[in-house]
Amino acid sequence: MFIKNTWYVACSASEVSDKPFGRRICNEPIVFFRDAQDVIQALEDFCPHRGAPLSLGRVVDGRLVCGYHGLEMGCEGKTIAMPGQRVGGFPPIKKYAVTERHGFIWVWPGDAQAADLTQMPQLEWADNPAWAYGGGMYHVACDYRLMVDNLMDLTHETYVHATSIGQPEIDETPCVTKIDGDHVTTSRFMNGIEAPPFWKMALRGNNLPDDQLVDRWQICHFTPPSHIMIEVGVALAGNGGYDAPDDKKAYSVVVDFLTPETETSMWYFWGMARRFNVGDAALTDAIREGQGKIFSEDLQMLESQQRNLLRMPQRKLLSLNIDAGGVQSRRVIDRYLALEPAN
Amino acid sequence: MFIKNTWYVACSASEVSDKPFGRRICNEPIVFFRDAQDVIQALEDFCPHRGAPLSLGRVVDGRLVCGYHGLEMGCEGKTIAMPGQRVGGFPPIKKYAVTERHGFIWVWPGDAQAADLTQMPQLEWADNPAWAYGGGMYHVACDYRLMVDNLMDLTHETYVHATSIGQPEIDETPCVTKIDGDHVTTSRFMNGIEAPPFWKMALRGNNLPDDQLVDRWQICHFTPPSHIMIEVGVALAGNGGYDAPDDKKAYSVVVDFLTPETETSMWYFWGMARRFNVGDAALTDAIREGQGKIFSEDLQMLESQQRNLLRMPQRKLLSLNIDAGGVQSRRVIDRYLALEPAN
Amino acid sequence: MFIKNTWYVACSASEVSDKPFGRRICNEPIVFFRDAQDVIQALEDFCPHRGAPLSLGRVVDGRLVCGYHGLEMGCEGKTIAMPGQRVGGFPPIKKYAVTERHGFIWVWPGDAQAADLTQMPQLEWADNPAWAYGGGMYHVACDYRLMVDNLMDLTHETYVHATSIGQPEIDETPCVTKIDGDHVTTSRFMNGIEAPPFWKMALRGNNLPDDQLVDRWQICHFTPPSHIMIEVGVALAGNGGYDAPDDKKAYSVVVDFLTPETETSMWYFWGMARRFNVGDAALTDAIREGQGKIFSEDLQMLESQQRNLLRMPQRKLLSLNIDAGGVQSRRVIDRYLALEPAN
Repeated sequence: MFIKNTWYVACSASEVSDKPFGRRICNEPIVFFRDAQDVIQALEDFCPHRGAPLSLGRVVDGRLVCGYHGLEMGCEGKTIAMPGQRVGGFPPIKKYAVTERHGFIWVWPGDAQAADLTQMPQLEWADNPAWAYGGGMYHVACDYRLMVDNLMDLTHETYVHATSIGQPEIDETPCVTKIDGDHVTTSRFMNGIEAPPFWKMALRGNNLPDDQLVDRWQICHFTPPSHIMIEVGVALAGNGGYDAPDDKKAYSVVVDFLTPETETSMWYFWGMARRFNVGDAALTDAIREGQGKIFSEDLQMLESQQRNLLRMPQRKLLSLNIDAGGVQSRRVIDRYLALEPAN
Repeated sequence: MFIKNTWYVACSASEVSDKPFGRRICNEPIVFFRDAQDVIQALEDFCPHRGAPLSLGRVVDGRLVCGYHGLEMGCEGKTIAMPGQRVGGFPPIKKYAVTERHGFIWVWPGDAQAADLTQMPQLEWADNPAWAYGGGMYHVACDYRLMVDNLMDLTHETYVHATSIGQPEIDETPCVTKIDGDHVTTSRFMNGIEAPPFWKMALRGNNLPDDQLVDRWQICHFTPPSHIMIEVGVALAGNGGYDAPDDKKAYSVVVDFLTPETETSMWYFWGMARRFNVGDAALTDAIREGQGKIFSEDLQMLESQQRNLLRMPQRKLLSLNIDAGGVQSRRVIDRYLALEPAN
Repeated sequence: MFIKNTWYVACSASEVSDKPFGRRICNEPIVFFRDAQDVIQALEDFCPHRGAPLSLGRVVDGRLVCGYHGLEMGCEGKTIAMPGQRVGGFPPIKKYAVTERHGFIWVWPGDAQAADLTQMPQLEWADNPAWAYGGGMYHVACDYRLMVDNLMDLTHETYVHATSIGQPEIDETPCVTKIDGDHVTTSRFMNGIEAPPFWKMALRGNNLPDDQLVDRWQICHFTPPSHIMIEVGVALAGNGGYDAPDDKKAYSVVVDFLTPETETSMWYFWGMARRFNVGDAALTDAIREGQGKIFSEDLQMLESQQRNLLRMPQRKLLSLNIDAGGVQSRRVIDRYLALEPAN
């Protein structure tokens, strides 16, 4: 059961070039390709002729051609042509609403007629020259909601990411969770602390000293279906913290788009948008490398947790204070799931 | 559900030497070995003592000896001897009818009493000095009937094998399917065309020019259970095409023996018998290499198709004009399946 | 269905150092760690907070700390602390009885209250300076009872281990099986034979000639749940065989602790304790290497046998004279299984 009438990141825009690209999303196999006008299109990845994946085919003059027997599929899911055949009676395949924005391909796995571009997330940092962005993608063998829990409760940083962004002050500082409609926010502010290694690197990246006390903040924003933007950063202590001027802090947004693949696997699009030293490509690379290493540390934990839960489905888990962000986010997910048509 | 009362290729004759050889065919684990007279024998691959695979054992003076505790199994499936034991009451294991012919080991997975050597396929090219043969074997994770479809409809060559044997004229030339009892034939004749790369190589192999227009033919012959012989070739244009004299053409038979392993996997014995320049071993090798590469291109497509069909079992596929060869062949298969005793 | 109210070897003592160690035993995921007094402890490998495996965590001052959010688990399975949380109401996890003895960690997967140290096997050779010990561990994908059969019937040595410890005299010499309560013994004595290669090596290791006839013995001792000690050795012929003085023989005990992982997989702790030339570490290494190679030969056979049995569950196996040791041992196992509480 998935929220299908919503926008998910399917892939980065560069993954769909002159070849079709297949990916399973919300348990639906989908093929993405660019039409003659270079506009992204998405269809069921299933040739109506013999069931071959259309993603193994090719794109010829903007038409999707099956790689098995040359059936030409139109952008609406109706077969256009096939060598030596009349195709009028061929059953259509599902067309998906899809769009390209902010360097990503976004797909609406539900009813294409209901797709609503106004529901796309607003991303201040995207296509904005005042920001720099770098990121990557991981396949993770867990229910995407375990990743929601993970990202809406950063106390795990102290344990899972002890050598990079974890520090005991995270544990010692309570977080505050607020709900505003579908928007769940969990915040933590730590003042007058030592910056952990990742943030020392970021301070240097903004030409700031890394040996002074800092104020640190983490503000996790969940919006449905499973987009999580985390405002993170450190400011030299005594300059206003989160509100400090840009030349006294390193301010970033951790970008997390979680896209379900199956009930127990997901595509994890992660990245960091920063508002300092944006022209420094080497810094972008260094941050991506550091963040990629940090997020890979979560994978073993989440996949092991998933296996444990599958083995012991009867066990109840606890929902503690620190879990409030995940608990509230799951309530939003549940509300949207209830709105989905029965499959 | 398989046609079991029929002959399948189990392996090449050289695969069964002085050691027993195990292979699962029609979901039955079978051990092959040579008796004291070097005659091939086949039995259930299951020691009646403790269930060990007899194929892990050895052959001693033509007797099959279990590799676990030394039980000696006779060619009829009755235990002959076992160290320190009386074996009279041991339950027999299944004996399979098996024979060696044309460089292959053939097995009849059904009732050995019903095995009928007159039902063995007649292979004009086999053991015939006027022909040369080379081939290989692939394990393919798909229902063998998907391979039947594939081989009885060569329009896929244009798409799957675009760089070797595919060419647009295949698509442009309708094929004709005929049924003669259990024998299904699908033919296509293309005249006055350019030879594709594989056939240019074959023309050179027969000391013919490769830069002239040719007539090309493809005549697919299906016979049950799943043997497909495809007459293929090209003749220099204007010499009678298929009926041209041997020194004006390159004439071959693509040999395809499809042997089911499980419901969704198969052993694919492929090869090419040719009637030109038969003494040229280097040409045999070149053809085998080219053909092996071509057939490997089918594997990804067929295995992906199989996965798609397993995910969407409710989907109906289309049976088009080009599919007539496969459709008719599957009808023959279904007739034989109906004759099988219920398991 | 397993005998859970009994002691199994969980791992070697050295596998649990300063980090927690996870292993599935009798289908139960268990985490092992050392407390502040360096005493071994064992708990369910499942954090009561979110289900993460505690074995991915760390040990801090003898407390087991979850690697996800820092929950501190006490040795009794009650949560001690968690940053920023009151933990009084947290549900407990299962505590296992566990002890360290003879270089191994032993666990009682059943009811910890019922754990009875007097039921630990008595091992004459352990912690005894008159003996030397070397061994290893294999994971084997088979029901542990197939290994019981294997070890309580050494006629397989002639076939599976033909180049090391097998010899035809094993087949030619009947074995005798005796039952004494829960203790099953199968013995075979072969006099005036040539020593096979492994034992020639052992004779040289005890500074004895390797080119004389020997008396050889094999005395397999099964005790529940699945511990098998096999007295093995050779004496120079004419010196009393098994009862020969130590300087005329090479006497060892093959040590086999079989620990079920799942219904069709097991942990196999194997080794050899010897009572000759005990100070020769190079000899210990040579024996371990030889024995490891011999036991690896069993793996392919047992795993293939297991696969065959899973494919053909309806087949009855035979219980022959040579199988008496295994048959009687399985009867003991069945008696203990009947005493287990229903799950």
